[in-house]
Amino acid sequence: MTAQPFRYPVRVYYEDTDAAGVVYYANYLKFMERARTEWLDARGLPLAELERVHGVVFVVTRAEIDFRGAARLGERLEATVAFERAGRAQMMARQSVRRGDEVLVEGHIRLACLARDGWRPARIPPELDRLLEAVR
Amino acid sequence: MTAQPFRYPVRVYYEDTDAAGVVYYANYLKFMERARTEWLDARGLPLAELERVHGVVFVVTRAEIDFRGAARLGERLEATVAFERAGRAQMMARQSVRRGDEVLVEGHIRLACLARDGWRPARIPPELDRLLEAVR
Amino acid sequence: MTAQPFRYPVRVYYEDTDAAGVVYYANYLKFMERARTEWLDARGLPLAELERVHGVVFVVTRAEIDFRGAARLGERLEATVAFERAGRAQMMARQSVRRGDEVLVEGHIRLACLARDGWRPARIPPELDRLLEAVR
Amino acid sequence: MTAQPFRYPVRVYYEDTDAAGVVYYANYLKFMERARTEWLDARGLPLAELERVHGVVFVVTRAEIDFRGAARLGERLEATVAFERAGRAQMMARQSVRRGDEVLVEGHIRLACLARDGWRPARIPPELDRLLEAVR
Repeated sequence: MTAQPFRYPVRVYYEDTDAAGVVYYANYLKFMERARTEWLDARGLPLAELERVHGVVFVVTRAEIDFRGAARLGERLEATVAFERAGRAQMMARQSVRRGDEVLVEGHIRLACLARDGWRPARIPPELDRLLEAVR
Repeated sequence: MTAQPFRYPVRVYYEDTDAAGVVYYANYLKFMERARTEWLDARGLPLAELERVHGVVFVVTRAEIDFRGAARLGERLEATVAFERAGRAQMMARQSVRRGDEVLVEGHIRLACLARDGWRPARIPPELDRLLEAVR
Repeated sequence: MTAQPFRYPVRVYYEDTDAAGVVYYANYLKFMERARTEWLDARGLPLAELERVHGVVFVVTRAEIDFRGAARLGERLEATVAFERAGRAQMMARQSVRRGDEVLVEGHIRLACLARDGWRPARIPPELDRLLEAVR
Repeated sequence: MTAQPFRYPVRVYYEDTDAAGVVYYANYLKFMERARTEWLDARGLPLAELERVHGVVFVVTRAEIDFRGAARLGERLEATVAFERAGRAQMMARQSVRRGDEVLVEGHIRLACLARDGWRPARIPPELDRLLEAVR
């Protein structure tokens, strides 16, 4: 049984596009991060709190992105995310950017949990850990 | 007698353009900031040193920008800057983005000098003050 | 009697911030453009239709921006816009970026209406003209 | 025998950084694209000419990026690229972003050659093909 991924709406503005008339390739990574951020927020664990209360930050250590289709100015898209634990100090995010049912971009993003001070690997806080278990 | 403005080369990449086929309007402000940063560097007062040694940062408090022409993908431009003091805790930057002799964008940018800790107005460091006098 | 400005929500993500810990100054211009775009959309005149049906595009010809306060990661802001006609081929947008009641950034943006083909000044389409009258 | 990769200097400005104090992860993809663009330019085959004369554009279809270290404000980096053919209508770019000898980010980028009109797969132009052979 697979949980439904979290979905977050994205509108394409001029700022997102390039002279080829489509969304600039690096900007899909912004859309994906918005979905990751909103997933945490929607679960009551905003990034700011993870940093302040738990003393951790998350950094992307690897991204695999497949670009299959192009989004254009004015379109309404969705960025999706489903998280998985990957050991004690890492998690994986399976992500997509979609236009309706069409998957335009697919991403596998690895995030490391780091201590805010010193940026050394840190254990994922138990509150977040429980959420990651729950989505399985 | 007016000093020649400082000039810094800018190349237009896809990242800078939008679906209208030209440089996205907000991105000219990036080009202008590159010129301001490089001016300080070229005079031996990099931003990092101003912050570390003198405990100050600079923030833009007002920008007046006239957009007269459009730059396109692949073009080689120049961002220019000429600074002026504006009291003890502010300076003005007269800036442009040019393609050859043509002024595409013109900007008047006001910067406030702030104490790094607390972000309250701070006197412009004397080393920088002397540079601003010198360019008159 | 002054009409209420149109308000559009903006969330601050990492993509919007810089190493000073606040929203990068040029990015407020992105937020302002989102509000302009959504205003047109909400009134049934999306940019894409203005271009396709009426053959016109809008370009920013002047921006005056006052930066009064700084927004930070994770904050929820609003970008506002109120439009005014400025002759047959131009309009003005009075804009702000707010955090609750606090105005962080204020902008006066002049937009020129141009023919899509050739980018020469063009009359504002009557459908849009009527909307601009209505907001007075 | 492996050819030396092409190197292109990158300076880190405020525009590139985020509130974590380092370069925003998606922005390394901008740096990599600058190197790809300049490689073509340095070989006399600028993107604009490939489009105008040969009727082709290149789009990224897959990106694998490893983020190993973080660049900070004001640092001077290098973006590198080495191209390889990958069939008649694709090429691979092995890329990095370095600070001195330290590899901060490593990327494998797959690019598809598309006909400018219609965006269907197109054969890599022979002039470019010869360059790709030459770097082996």
